[in-house]
Amino acid sequence: MRGTVFCLIGLLAAGSAQAAPETWLLSIDRWGNVERRTAVLDTAADGTVTGRLGDRPLAGRLEDGKLSVATTGEGDLLRLEAVIADGRMTGEADLPDTNDDGARQRHGLTGRRLPEVPAGPPGRRQFTPDRWSNAFTAEAEPVLFIRPGEIISTQTIDSGGVDAAGVTRALYGNPQTGPFFVLGAEPGQVMAVHIRKLSLNRDWADSLSGYVGRALTPGMAANGAGRSERVRWRLDRAAGTARLETPPERLKDYVVPVRPMLGGLGVAPDFGFQPFSAGDTGRFGGNIDFNGLGEGATIYLPVYQPGALLFLGDGHALQGDGEITQWALETSLDVEFSVELLPARPMSGPRIETNDRITTIGQDGSLDDALKQATTGMIQWLAQDYGLIPSESSLVLGTAAQFRVVTLAGRNAGMALSLDKAWLAGLPKKATDRP
Amino acid sequence: MRGTVFCLIGLLAAGSAQAAPETWLLSIDRWGNVERRTAVLDTAADGTVTGRLGDRPLAGRLEDGKLSVATTGEGDLLRLEAVIADGRMTGEADLPDTNDDGARQRHGLTGRRLPEVPAGPPGRRQFTPDRWSNAFTAEAEPVLFIRPGEIISTQTIDSGGVDAAGVTRALYGNPQTGPFFVLGAEPGQVMAVHIRKLSLNRDWADSLSGYVGRALTPGMAANGAGRSERVRWRLDRAAGTARLETPPERLKDYVVPVRPMLGGLGVAPDFGFQPFSAGDTGRFGGNIDFNGLGEGATIYLPVYQPGALLFLGDGHALQGDGEITQWALETSLDVEFSVELLPARPMSGPRIETNDRITTIGQDGSLDDALKQATTGMIQWLAQDYGLIPSESSLVLGTAAQFRVVTLAGRNAGMALSLDKAWLAGLPKKATDRP
Amino acid sequence: MRGTVFCLIGLLAAGSAQAAPETWLLSIDRWGNVERRTAVLDTAADGTVTGRLGDRPLAGRLEDGKLSVATTGEGDLLRLEAVIADGRMTGEADLPDTNDDGARQRHGLTGRRLPEVPAGPPGRRQFTPDRWSNAFTAEAEPVLFIRPGEIISTQTIDSGGVDAAGVTRALYGNPQTGPFFVLGAEPGQVMAVHIRKLSLNRDWADSLSGYVGRALTPGMAANGAGRSERVRWRLDRAAGTARLETPPERLKDYVVPVRPMLGGLGVAPDFGFQPFSAGDTGRFGGNIDFNGLGEGATIYLPVYQPGALLFLGDGHALQGDGEITQWALETSLDVEFSVELLPARPMSGPRIETNDRITTIGQDGSLDDALKQATTGMIQWLAQDYGLIPSESSLVLGTAAQFRVVTLAGRNAGMALSLDKAWLAGLPKKATDRP
Amino acid sequence: MRGTVFCLIGLLAAGSAQAAPETWLLSIDRWGNVERRTAVLDTAADGTVTGRLGDRPLAGRLEDGKLSVATTGEGDLLRLEAVIADGRMTGEADLPDTNDDGARQRHGLTGRRLPEVPAGPPGRRQFTPDRWSNAFTAEAEPVLFIRPGEIISTQTIDSGGVDAAGVTRALYGNPQTGPFFVLGAEPGQVMAVHIRKLSLNRDWADSLSGYVGRALTPGMAANGAGRSERVRWRLDRAAGTARLETPPERLKDYVVPVRPMLGGLGVAPDFGFQPFSAGDTGRFGGNIDFNGLGEGATIYLPVYQPGALLFLGDGHALQGDGEITQWALETSLDVEFSVELLPARPMSGPRIETNDRITTIGQDGSLDDALKQATTGMIQWLAQDYGLIPSESSLVLGTAAQFRVVTLAGRNAGMALSLDKAWLAGLPKKATDRP
Repeated sequence: MRGTVFCLIGLLAAGSAQAAPETWLLSIDRWGNVERRTAVLDTAADGTVTGRLGDRPLAGRLEDGKLSVATTGEGDLLRLEAVIADGRMTGEADLPDTNDDGARQRHGLTGRRLPEVPAGPPGRRQFTPDRWSNAFTAEAEPVLFIRPGEIISTQTIDSGGVDAAGVTRALYGNPQTGPFFVLGAEPGQVMAVHIRKLSLNRDWADSLSGYVGRALTPGMAANGAGRSERVRWRLDRAAGTARLETPPERLKDYVVPVRPMLGGLGVAPDFGFQPFSAGDTGRFGGNIDFNGLGEGATIYLPVYQPGALLFLGDGHALQGDGEITQWALETSLDVEFSVELLPARPMSGPRIETNDRITTIGQDGSLDDALKQATTGMIQWLAQDYGLIPSESSLVLGTAAQFRVVTLAGRNAGMALSLDKAWLAGLPKKATDRP
Repeated sequence: MRGTVFCLIGLLAAGSAQAAPETWLLSIDRWGNVERRTAVLDTAADGTVTGRLGDRPLAGRLEDGKLSVATTGEGDLLRLEAVIADGRMTGEADLPDTNDDGARQRHGLTGRRLPEVPAGPPGRRQFTPDRWSNAFTAEAEPVLFIRPGEIISTQTIDSGGVDAAGVTRALYGNPQTGPFFVLGAEPGQVMAVHIRKLSLNRDWADSLSGYVGRALTPGMAANGAGRSERVRWRLDRAAGTARLETPPERLKDYVVPVRPMLGGLGVAPDFGFQPFSAGDTGRFGGNIDFNGLGEGATIYLPVYQPGALLFLGDGHALQGDGEITQWALETSLDVEFSVELLPARPMSGPRIETNDRITTIGQDGSLDDALKQATTGMIQWLAQDYGLIPSESSLVLGTAAQFRVVTLAGRNAGMALSLDKAWLAGLPKKATDRP
Repeated sequence: MRGTVFCLIGLLAAGSAQAAPETWLLSIDRWGNVERRTAVLDTAADGTVTGRLGDRPLAGRLEDGKLSVATTGEGDLLRLEAVIADGRMTGEADLPDTNDDGARQRHGLTGRRLPEVPAGPPGRRQFTPDRWSNAFTAEAEPVLFIRPGEIISTQTIDSGGVDAAGVTRALYGNPQTGPFFVLGAEPGQVMAVHIRKLSLNRDWADSLSGYVGRALTPGMAANGAGRSERVRWRLDRAAGTARLETPPERLKDYVVPVRPMLGGLGVAPDFGFQPFSAGDTGRFGGNIDFNGLGEGATIYLPVYQPGALLFLGDGHALQGDGEITQWALETSLDVEFSVELLPARPMSGPRIETNDRITTIGQDGSLDDALKQATTGMIQWLAQDYGLIPSESSLVLGTAAQFRVVTLAGRNAGMALSLDKAWLAGLPKKATDRP
Repeated sequence: MRGTVFCLIGLLAAGSAQAAPETWLLSIDRWGNVERRTAVLDTAADGTVTGRLGDRPLAGRLEDGKLSVATTGEGDLLRLEAVIADGRMTGEADLPDTNDDGARQRHGLTGRRLPEVPAGPPGRRQFTPDRWSNAFTAEAEPVLFIRPGEIISTQTIDSGGVDAAGVTRALYGNPQTGPFFVLGAEPGQVMAVHIRKLSLNRDWADSLSGYVGRALTPGMAANGAGRSERVRWRLDRAAGTARLETPPERLKDYVVPVRPMLGGLGVAPDFGFQPFSAGDTGRFGGNIDFNGLGEGATIYLPVYQPGALLFLGDGHALQGDGEITQWALETSLDVEFSVELLPARPMSGPRIETNDRITTIGQDGSLDDALKQATTGMIQWLAQDYGLIPSESSLVLGTAAQFRVVTLAGRNAGMALSLDKAWLAGLPKKATDRP
């Protein structure tokens, strides 16, 4: 059996008798699997606690460092009993379990207090990473707490773990900068990530010659087209071009414009999933490897975990459609981004928006299935933004669809479906929220 | 067992003692299957015949209307015995059969004399079709004999068989204008078809709402997205736009620019194949449904039959990638084209060239396999034009590949792989021949 | 656009004033495409004609060899005007055309009188073929008119066209014995073909070494596993075994039991389709290449054409699942079969029944899609025979499904879904008709 | 970029001056990723240490609890410096990093002493689990250290985490019993797991009605065949049968024989991989869901981690091919198994052996690709056991292959390729080792 039950659990609470509500990140042990939820605890002078656990109201008491709260209102009752000390919480959560036998068990609980969002408008922040993650996972300790709107300048290292100075800083396999914990991000929301700037920060990139298996007929594989060797490209940052460092004779004048992109960008997946490899993809984003995810692009992803936990990495100086050589022009990059939190919307996969077009990404075990995912994503999007039912959106896609192959180089294949905004200009917008 | 043995058979010869060589189209019956080859017969005053049968020299005699010739030189001996009268030939061909048991059998033979290519440069010709073909096949009687370089102005009717005046002229199912017999075209050559002009010739197009099965996840199918109904578009030829005739409320201002294209363009397939439906595709081209096959494009196809036998049809006023609604904006078109004959080159599938890019088309039972075909095609092309070995061409594709979905609406799925010519400008051309 | 409009046209005609109704096979020219229908004409002494055209009643007159009839009752009016002479009919059919513009055109009509079904029970007949067909098509002239229930003993030649005596009798590419015209078979019915006997009739079979592309990873293709060479097997008819004629050392004792099967079995496809290659498959059956189609099996196919037009061929002495070597053990066979006509039922693909199991065959461009077809076929079948709705049949398939790969060697891949009849024994049959 | 560099690192060290060599499990931190290797340390009275690190010899000294050793012989030098106390080791490993820049960095090191293998023949052991794992991962703490040949009797809980008594004991999602640490198992070996007994231990199983998406055509999905609901089956352990607890009318006599199987069986994946969900599959095995993996079967898996770390779970009382209802008859089981360690062999995927047949399992993103993997696996196996080159094994598979669909219910599809051992009896075995 494969399958995941999506469950909602939350929880928990706070310090002493001060006025300001506190926000806590709770970790509930579910037979060795950790479920994370935020709790806001507002403790009155008399020890009365009110607040919320995830998106549900809670009430109870905090006395002598002992917290005892429960959710109120509709839905299953969730109870928390915990001791608070030194900004840490330890206790138990009592919640209905996920099988339909109505079982209830007590589960170990720990909590940490989250930083408060500072007053004032969000500004600009420089962040220099010193550790990276080889997985998209909520288990990774955040490298930075950021606010929506805040502009973060940072760097990514290359897919082999090598930085701008040529030093190996992390394990090969697309090590990601992050995760960034986005204050205020709650499961169910949509997060927009704006890639404000993206630029080369070194003079070389590594790639491979030879073709990935997904691109090869048996005949061409028999010709040896699948054999690959490492090649180095020289990047001319002033000119914005790339050329082979030691080209074969016939390619010595092959000089191409760079187009920096982030191969990897994702959030932590939902409870019930294992960590995803930094080379894998899913609804959480991941190693998407779409050459349209460059400077000026915005990507929309669902939030599954408190803080969303944003990861980014695997920069490419340039990549043809499909990343047909398994490695694109792998390099380190300077990145400037900000995030924005948006109301919940069903999204069957990542969405990308640029000045002139909107794009859905389908990711699945074959191109055929990935295309279906991308199409479903666009049908959803046009329904949400323009109120189109499928028979109507088909008339748009039948005339305007642009399908591009995203990647052939991962466990999932990727397919992009784009529409030019200019073509959509005549359609009345249904609502103002995005995406 | 599936499989096809490619065999070379040819044959035969001519009238009285005049000086000019004659060209004959021979039909050899192979147990109910007809193999076609051209023969050039040059008969001297003494009855001595020389010439060629396909690409092999022949020699023999013609006396009292009785022709007896055989191939000379290397390879299996092919003999023809026939009677010539009234521009028709009847007789037998003696040739090695295709099983490796060395069997030889006599096969019925008929022949017709082909028109001679007129002197002088090719000009321009108007052709108004009055019959159409629902198959790509050598069995269809040519509608016109044309010359390389000659500019042919003609029309296509829509995929339902309806012409510019709204009259049903042929059976639904992409009836094709043609076949055009190209004088001088011989199996093994490559034929370039230049689409010089392509324009709307009526004010409406028919399409469907709803999505093809290849685009639908099971969930979206369960939502009814696969249900389709016929819709009519109004075409504004002056403005070059299309809009729905009776749009749903939300699409009443959906006005889009037309981009006329030929959905169908193909040649007769090789001996050993059955007629291909006008809705099917293969190496011979066919119902490719590529929205890049418009005015100004050149398509390269292999020649499998004497005269190539060119078909074209299934015009679309506009089509999004993938023809996701099964019918694009189906309409009749005015077409102006010319053909060019080029030396033989292996081509795993159709190739298309425009001012700014080159494209290979892959066509197979899934997008995954179609992509492999398109990639193989481009590896071949770059090898032929630039001398690149696979590890070298991978560096070009790894940086410059543009993969677009061609069609989801046929038995075969289609995938296009394009390269911008500007990116190839730095590569030294290996040879002057194309493609 | 791809697509086929299924239309119903029929038609007509008759002889002189005798009492017995006559059955005619009509061919209506639809812009170069031939639609075939049967007409039963019962002409009274006064020239009044009644009867049917396909499944619709008709009425009119026959005078002086001039027939003028039209359908009666509901539905579009179809009119026929023809001259009858020497068992042939020539005239015109006036019928609504297939585009929804309501157009009506007159179409050329010819007809031939069909033999009457003899009185008495069906017997046994020996048929020795002397021509074969390389296509599944209604255009092939019937080799024999047969009756339901009649037992036909005949032979098939091998896929290369070679007969039991080693003589090449037809073109390579799975030449089929047939077509057999089944008297009384009408479009819409289901035909059961019972393979009563199937046996080797020579001592050798040809096959290939090496793997088909569909079975090869790129890595294994690069190892050369796709290279193939012809190999000959010796068949020991007494022992019922096969061994290599000149085995490599390690296979010199590889002796395996034969299990004769028909790779090809199909009927003529519907009007609107081109001839299908004898190597292709579809709902009409075709080159199915299922190793379960041996002696004792019954296959159910839809009838699309008057007379059904049954083809069979491509015998294999033995074939592993998938026909992974492109050729199985290709040989000629002795075949004894009979057919049975059954009421109409929707069938998404061929169905096969043996003593102990029922099987649906899915055939499509990929195994993934072929499996979906096979599953749909079985859901249909269980609904028809047992009245199960999908949620119910899923409980049967979830416990009892047996999926086998049929073929990897054709343009379509094939997948079989079988159920043991013993497992179905507890289910109440809904109806007595089959399949 | 996706990709994994396979690297070999090892290491390590020892206690006091006693004679017996000690075995340690080392954990080396590679930028947040833990690489595990075993070290055998044999410390002489003078502090001289010899032994091995993984499969490489090492030498050095242990003095005052300070260990300093390095590998000897060919290959990159690996050095370890650590302090040993209380059966734990802490220190640093100095090893070449995995990028080809020749970088060397020091990495944190910890170690734990492994239990020694007891003297005497392996016996029989009962193990009652009290925790389970929702992932196949080396990060899970072993539940038991076992010996090759030892017979372990234990239980699995069902895929929803419910045990034989109906109590939820673990998180839904195929929680696995294990991991079992196999003493002596080293990366590179092959491990055979013999399923000696497998039996029902409760009287019910849960399943779903409705079809998985991979089995549905768009049309059948539109019919609602994808809607699923939970159903309960009653298991009759005495009779060995299953029937629906509350069947619909037409299925009230649908009684089927059970055939218990393990849906999940796998080892910890290699360094460089993230934990695999207990619902996922790969070369490590995993949630294979093959209904042939029942009592009497042996499965062969590669060993990637010290101790192999064997997991098993997701028992099914019965499952049709493909697990077409997403859940089979999910239940808890009694299991008796033993393991065996075998020399290294390349294996592209899991192999399974029963009394009468051998089977390779292919697992990939589509059935088409899974079949290629299964075929590659069998080509390998026949090469290893019988010395057959591909052109030879094709003759075996062409006649004897049995392809069965394993699963449609996971992220990967699964395909099995089986051969009857009786058919292989004539082939000379190349070697005595397995698999």
